[in-house]
Amino acid sequence: MTQKAFQDYYPDDLSYCYGCGRLNPEGYHIKSYWEGDETVCHFEPQPHHISIPGYVYGGLIASLIDCHGTGSAAAAAYRAQGRSMDSQPPLRFVTASLHVDYLRPTPLGIPLTLRGRINEVKGRKVTVSITVYAGEEATATGEVVAVQITDEWLQKFKPGETSR
Amino acid sequence: MTQKAFQDYYPDDLSYCYGCGRLNPEGYHIKSYWEGDETVCHFEPQPHHISIPGYVYGGLIASLIDCHGTGSAAAAAYRAQGRSMDSQPPLRFVTASLHVDYLRPTPLGIPLTLRGRINEVKGRKVTVSITVYAGEEATATGEVVAVQITDEWLQKFKPGETSR
Repeated sequence: MTQKAFQDYYPDDLSYCYGCGRLNPEGYHIKSYWEGDETVCHFEPQPHHISIPGYVYGGLIASLIDCHGTGSAAAAAYRAQGRSMDSQPPLRFVTASLHVDYLRPTPLGIPLTLRGRINEVKGRKVTVSITVYAGEEATATGEVVAVQITDEWLQKFKPGETSR
Repeated sequence: MTQKAFQDYYPDDLSYCYGCGRLNPEGYHIKSYWEGDETVCHFEPQPHHISIPGYVYGGLIASLIDCHGTGSAAAAAYRAQGRSMDSQPPLRFVTASLHVDYLRPTPLGIPLTLRGRINEVKGRKVTVSITVYAGEEATATGEVVAVQITDEWLQKFKPGETSR
């Protein structure tokens, strides 16, 4: 059975994110899924996503943690409300703060896995801890504090009314 | 008088960074300069660097803070040693930790300015605080803890000996 990614449930008008929007042709197309109580994301950096030779660009790692974090936050909010991600109204989150600790250089050329743990769902705020693995080796850890977009903001993004 | 960017002093072999490497044709080409005791970076996000409609992708903002932070750290280390950035041996920094607080959504379509302040130069570690402005408005703040690449690592990156 194929599981649908969290990001593929986002309303069309909120699916242009450079990190995770399925409708942004130039973006990273980050995809996140449940795996039990963890959230998981697989990503293969391209050769040009380099920092120092042989290693992955830290800004990409921050981007992966960011979008996997907000995606995980949305999924956790639906789960806390006991409803599926295709139910209404949509719950979408933006990042309030992002922290990344780079434990060691992340080797380029092997697939990365991010594993997220939901620390807290409190009102409109969700906190997610994430570990980045290159193969079996943990190379970075991160924390995302995500806040739910208000209904007023969501209204602004109905199709045909955006500034895009 | 045209000032040379910090990143344009990096050795060729360390100039492929996706964020700030002058030799990475697909990268962001982030450039940083002194302005008195502050470091400054100007950057114009492209239309595809979108998050929610009308606003800049947070992962790009994290990337700008990251590379402006490590560039500022290198410049501060040379300054602390009283020597110019084209003197030997080269000092290059990688990110140990990155923190970003997103104060408000950053509007897309206007140039961004990052201003860095060197908090501490201590041994091989430099801490830099950065504010991101969209026009006059501060939209994000960040802190980068950067560590100097060891001589052993630098040796690995001499031309012809890399894993690139």
